Amino acid sequence: MLMETARKGEFILIKLDHGEDILESVTQVIKEERSTLLVVTGLGMISDFELGYFDQGNYIRKSYPEPHELLALQGSISTEGTPRIHIHATVANKEHEAFGGHLMRGKAWMSNEIGLLRLERLTSVRAFDPEKKVGVLHLKK
Amino acid sequence: MLMETARKGEFILIKLDHGEDILESVTQVIKEERSTLLVVTGLGMISDFELGYFDQGNYIRKSYPEPHELLALQGSISTEGTPRIHIHATVANKEHEAFGGHLMRGKAWMSNEIGLLRLERLTSVRAFDPEKKVGVLHLKK
Amino acid sequence: MLMETARKGEFILIKLDHGEDILESVTQVIKEERSTLLVVTGLGMISDFELGYFDQGNYIRKSYPEPHELLALQGSISTEGTPRIHIHATVANKEHEAFGGHLMRGKAWMSNEIGLLRLERLTSVRAFDPEKKVGVLHLKK
Repeated sequence: MLMETARKGEFILIKLDHGEDILESVTQVIKEERSTLLVVTGLGMISDFELGYFDQGNYIRKSYPEPHELLALQGSISTEGTPRIHIHATVANKEHEAFGGHLMRGKAWMSNEIGLLRLERLTSVRAFDPEKKVGVLHLKK
Repeated sequence: MLMETARKGEFILIKLDHGEDILESVTQVIKEERSTLLVVTGLGMISDFELGYFDQGNYIRKSYPEPHELLALQGSISTEGTPRIHIHATVANKEHEAFGGHLMRGKAWMSNEIGLLRLERLTSVRAFDPEKKVGVLHLKK
Repeated sequence: MLMETARKGEFILIKLDHGEDILESVTQVIKEERSTLLVVTGLGMISDFELGYFDQGNYIRKSYPEPHELLALQGSISTEGTPRIHIHATVANKEHEAFGGHLMRGKAWMSNEIGLLRLERLTSVRAFDPEKKVGVLHLKK
């Protein structure tokens, strides 16, 4: 792995190199974490990605093989549950038009800079809600 | 209210349930706060919302009754002034096309996860600027 | 300069007035900083701006003279290297359609609120990568 990671107090900064898988890399970085985290920044370029729109229990998916500017990532990472990582992405194409959705998969193009914030001792679980047909975050007291 | 809230140090994480009003819920959570806050994340889905584009003293508004993926929220909450909450939203439709603007109103669809950062002891006021015809944030020393 | 700045611990909040240059203002605010910073929020309106899409060593640029709602800023600021400031912007036009890309230049319209997070003692450098033909962030141990 070419990924670089720096941790200071409640911050984690991840630098991904060209071709590295975004969700797999974040999963690896946070696998020892026992605090809820927020994904507060994500920029660079992204390729081979898929965006989802959640519709009645299923994601309407669209694949984007071409590189796009990665404008923003916002997300949450629960201390328990599957999937622990929930990230929404905003991207732009060559014409600077913006698209976005639930990040189903994606690879860093050139370089990615992803910033996480650790919410120390704040535990949470993402549990499947049978009525909503999706995993829903719950904060623990 | 079904809203869940967790506070740890300078972080506040809000989990809204289906149908809860976003601006009303944030208003309730922060009503005791005396520090300026930043809205740093907001994801999930949003419905019954209205986006604004500020044009010479008035907002050009558009209503979106259909649920959209909520890609990002960024905002500020002043310690004084009306309205205290200033949030801009980025959303995407079923075709993954992105839209956005000043969040005039909106409801959580399925679930919303909103992250706030407290800027401890940093006071601020949102005061009406007669020339700009809008409330403008001012930071206090 | 009409810019207002407040610093508390690891937070920096910048309020720009109408017409102030965004990148120049941020450059001025962070010029004494020796810590890596993240740009975590940026909202208000933006005009006279240019967005870039990076394509094989060059940016495909588009100028937007008209004011747009500034939906989000996400970025990183390295402690060394040129350019130190790397910001991606998401904006929306009067029809609430979203656009975005690498922020090449831009001015605050009405007012801008930009939030930075200092990653204390986390040093970094943005170094030109001859293969990628762009400056790439590297985190130091």
